[in-house]
Amino acid sequence: MHVAIIAVQSIDGCITRHRGEGAVGWASEEDQQHFRRALATFDCAIFGAGTYRADRDHIRPRVQPDLLRMVMTRNPDAFAGDGVADQLEFTAQPPADVVAELSARGRQRCALLGGQQVYGQFFQEDLVDELILTLEPVIFGEGLRLCDQPVERRFELAETSHLSPSTLLLRYMRREKGEVGNPGRSSEGR
Amino acid sequence: MHVAIIAVQSIDGCITRHRGEGAVGWASEEDQQHFRRALATFDCAIFGAGTYRADRDHIRPRVQPDLLRMVMTRNPDAFAGDGVADQLEFTAQPPADVVAELSARGRQRCALLGGQQVYGQFFQEDLVDELILTLEPVIFGEGLRLCDQPVERRFELAETSHLSPSTLLLRYMRREKGEVGNPGRSSEGR
Repeated sequence: MHVAIIAVQSIDGCITRHRGEGAVGWASEEDQQHFRRALATFDCAIFGAGTYRADRDHIRPRVQPDLLRMVMTRNPDAFAGDGVADQLEFTAQPPADVVAELSARGRQRCALLGGQQVYGQFFQEDLVDELILTLEPVIFGEGLRLCDQPVERRFELAETSHLSPSTLLLRYMRREKGEVGNPGRSSEGR
Repeated sequence: MHVAIIAVQSIDGCITRHRGEGAVGWASEEDQQHFRRALATFDCAIFGAGTYRADRDHIRPRVQPDLLRMVMTRNPDAFAGDGVADQLEFTAQPPADVVAELSARGRQRCALLGGQQVYGQFFQEDLVDELILTLEPVIFGEGLRLCDQPVERRFELAETSHLSPSTLLLRYMRREKGEVGNPGRSSEGR
């Protein structure tokens, strides 16, 4: 199973604009279009209950067998009425088990769609193979970031392109595990 | 006066690797070389007392009249022994006044070198004209970010280049003030 995060962030690494109201929905139209095109190349998706709740009205009319959406929640029973077998399911399993199950059920490409805690768990367990990242040209200073816990995961830059003159699309692939990166040296400002 | 931040960050927007020991000195050798080349194009620099303390042993042998280093601190007297007129000075003035003074003294290009609080103050007061950002291909999950307070500052991407196959150099210019960005729309995962 190939697991890819598809995310958008500010220059300074905020995936939400500050916190609370207005925290989502700030990405450019070009990013929205890219997101829909990218998601269409996956046959399953994983995201958290918070993301599901925020996007429920958008997701429910769009459930379809070509994209098995799996929602991670501590309490799947709370969503029993929303479930559609093979299209929209709810699970309390840990990340590696969710991935294994999707794979056992014949799915091959999994989009990881947030939120921060779900990303953090997958980074922590080193389950992220690819990072498809939109970089919007704005500084927010406050907001959630892509990972909510200390890790050190090195990637290789596979592709850079422009979604618009100032919006970058970066694609990173997970570097072979165990490979040591350049440790760098300290200097003024570094 | 043209004010430019020269910074390095992880993919997820950390300018330090976690916190405490090992938080600095993680950037690639390519970034170190780029930093020295870039800094040589400026005639003055501003940074905070924390950054000065961390890099003091590196900075003191390198003070020179071509680069007036101005250290922002609440207590300039504490550093009286280190000062060298027109080369290494300490000031308790607020950001706009420091910039104005450097300008009045004939300096034209100012590098802003951190740390997070200094960046935050300059973003807050909208004094950042340019952002020269190295993006290292690593996820840290925890660390200081480029700005320590909620703002919304939109930039234009002026240049992208590679410092190495996986290390990007991005140059952003401050968008004309008052111009409204695309507000975007909400959708699954966005």
